[in-house]
Amino acid sequence: MDMTNYPSQAVIREVGLRDGLQSIQTILSTEKKMAWVRRAYEAGQKEIEVGSFVPPKLLPQLADTAEVLAFAKTLPGLFASVLIPNLKGAERALEGNADLMILPLSASHEHSLANLRKTPDDVVDEMRRIRAARDSSGKKTLIEGGVGTAFGCTIQGHVDPNEVLRLMQALLDAGADRVSLADTVGYADPLSVSRLFEKALKLAGDKFWCGHFHDTRGLALANVFASLQLGVSRFDASLAGIGGCPHAPGASGNASSEDLAFMLQAMGVDCGIDLNQLLALRQSVTQWLSGEATHGALWKSGLPKTMR
Amino acid sequence: MDMTNYPSQAVIREVGLRDGLQSIQTILSTEKKMAWVRRAYEAGQKEIEVGSFVPPKLLPQLADTAEVLAFAKTLPGLFASVLIPNLKGAERALEGNADLMILPLSASHEHSLANLRKTPDDVVDEMRRIRAARDSSGKKTLIEGGVGTAFGCTIQGHVDPNEVLRLMQALLDAGADRVSLADTVGYADPLSVSRLFEKALKLAGDKFWCGHFHDTRGLALANVFASLQLGVSRFDASLAGIGGCPHAPGASGNASSEDLAFMLQAMGVDCGIDLNQLLALRQSVTQWLSGEATHGALWKSGLPKTMR
Repeated sequence: MDMTNYPSQAVIREVGLRDGLQSIQTILSTEKKMAWVRRAYEAGQKEIEVGSFVPPKLLPQLADTAEVLAFAKTLPGLFASVLIPNLKGAERALEGNADLMILPLSASHEHSLANLRKTPDDVVDEMRRIRAARDSSGKKTLIEGGVGTAFGCTIQGHVDPNEVLRLMQALLDAGADRVSLADTVGYADPLSVSRLFEKALKLAGDKFWCGHFHDTRGLALANVFASLQLGVSRFDASLAGIGGCPHAPGASGNASSEDLAFMLQAMGVDCGIDLNQLLALRQSVTQWLSGEATHGALWKSGLPKTMR
Repeated sequence: MDMTNYPSQAVIREVGLRDGLQSIQTILSTEKKMAWVRRAYEAGQKEIEVGSFVPPKLLPQLADTAEVLAFAKTLPGLFASVLIPNLKGAERALEGNADLMILPLSASHEHSLANLRKTPDDVVDEMRRIRAARDSSGKKTLIEGGVGTAFGCTIQGHVDPNEVLRLMQALLDAGADRVSLADTVGYADPLSVSRLFEKALKLAGDKFWCGHFHDTRGLALANVFASLQLGVSRFDASLAGIGGCPHAPGASGNASSEDLAFMLQAMGVDCGIDLNQLLALRQSVTQWLSGEATHGALWKSGLPKTMR
C-alpha cells in the first residue's frame, strides 16, 4: 500500500448544523444550536459550518445563522464557515466575519437548474462578483467553491468528470480561494473517488480543501479512506449522520462525525477530537431531534477496549 | 493510487445463514432457509456458508444444517461451506459432502478459552486431526482455518499481529488448505487491515482465502476496500447485515451483502450478483426476521440512476 501522501492529521468539519438541519423537519432553537457549537468545540471540533445565508422562508431551520455565527466567533480558534447561495449571502457572511464562506455549484446542469435556477457557469459568474465584494470589503473571509453532484445526480444521472474538473478550474479562475468536491447524493465509490480526487488535487494543489461524502449507500467512510490515501485531510461530516436525501426517505446524510472520528483515530490520524465528549454530545443532539432519523454505528457499540 | 493487485472479480460469500442466524433469537424454518439459499443462488451468490455443525443444544437456530447443506448440494455450481467447531463437526461436514469446512481459531487466548474452552494451539492440533480425517475419507472437502479476533478482542483487548500470523502459519502447517482473517468484533480499521493483510498474503500466498469484517463500528466496507487493494478477492458478508455482537446490543453483524455487492459493482469489480434480486431477497428475509435488528443502506436509497 502506497502511504506516501497519507496525512498524520486531518480535520473533520462539522456540517450537521447546516447540511444536517436543513433537510430535516425539526427546528432547533438558537440556544440549542449554540450549545451544540460550544460542546462540539469543547470536544475538539475546530471547524464548524454554522448555517446558511439563504432566505429564511426557504429554510426556516437556518433563519438564525447570523446569531449562531456571532456566537461561534466568540470561541477562540474556532474556524466558522457558512454556506452562501449568492452574492447577497456573501455580504451577510462578510458582515458576520465568517472565517470561510462556501458557494455551492452543482456540476450536474439539470440539478443546478432545478435547485439553484442557474447554470453552473452562472454560479462561476457569481463567484467572480463574490470575490470582488470580499476583496473590496477588506475582510479576511475565505471563499470556497464547492463542486457538488460530482459523482452523479439523481435527476441527470451521469455527470462527466471532465465537466467537474472544468468547473473547478473555472471557480479557481473566478477567484475561489479554496475548492472542494461533494458527492451530494451518495453515488461515489472508492474507485471513482480515487480517480476524480487524484485529478482534482493535481488541478487545485494547495487550494483543494475538503471532501464531502454522503452515506446514502453506506460508502462514505470507504470514500473518505480512498481520498485520505491521496493526501486529502479535511472532510465534512455531520453528527449522528443527520441530513439525509430528499429523494431517499430514511437514507443517511453525511458521514457520521463520530464514526469518522473513530476511523481516523483508529488509524492514528490525529483529528483532535475527544470521542467520549463527541458521543455525549451526539446523545444530546439526538434527544433534541427526537423523531428524526439518525445514523451511525459507534454510539451503539462504544469504543473498543483497546481505545478506552 | 497503486492498483497493481486490484482484482477484476470478487466473491461475496454469504454468511447470513450461519454467522447471521446464530446470533439472533428467531429460528428460521428449514423451508425458509432453503428458499434463502435458492434465491441467493439465483441472484448470483455462488458461495454460501449454510450453517454450523455445532451441538443443537448450543445453537438450536442451526440444528438443521445437514438438511440445508443437502439442499445446497442440489444446486449446480453452488459452493457450500459449513462451520465446524472440531473433528466431530468435520465428520458431519464430510458426510454431507460440504465443499469447504471452516475451523475457527481465535487469536485472542482469552477469547479462545472463554468461547471454545481451548487454547489457540489446541485448535491447531484439532486442525491436524481434521486434515487426517479428510484425507482418509477420500472426500474433496476443503479445509479453511479462520483466524478470528485478528484485530483485537472484547475480552483481552489487544491481540498481537505477530501471534495472528504465527497461528495462521501453524494452521497451514497442520494441514489447512485455506486460511482467512476475521475481525470478529469490529476493531479493525483500514490501516490495520492493510498492514496485517499484507503480511498474511505474503505468508499464505494462494492459500489466503477470505476477509471477514464485522460492521460493528461502521468500518466494514472501508476495510473491504483496504484489503481489495492488496488483491484480496473474497469477502464474507451477511444479507441485511444480520448477526450483531453479543457485547453490543443493536450493533451490526457482518458487512451487509447488498451494500458490499453495490460497492463492488460500482467499482467495476464483477461479483456476479443481480442487485435487484438480492434486494428483493433481503426484503423477504427481513420479513421472516421481523423484530430482529437489520442493517444496511442500499435498501433505503435504492440503486443510483446510473446503475438502473
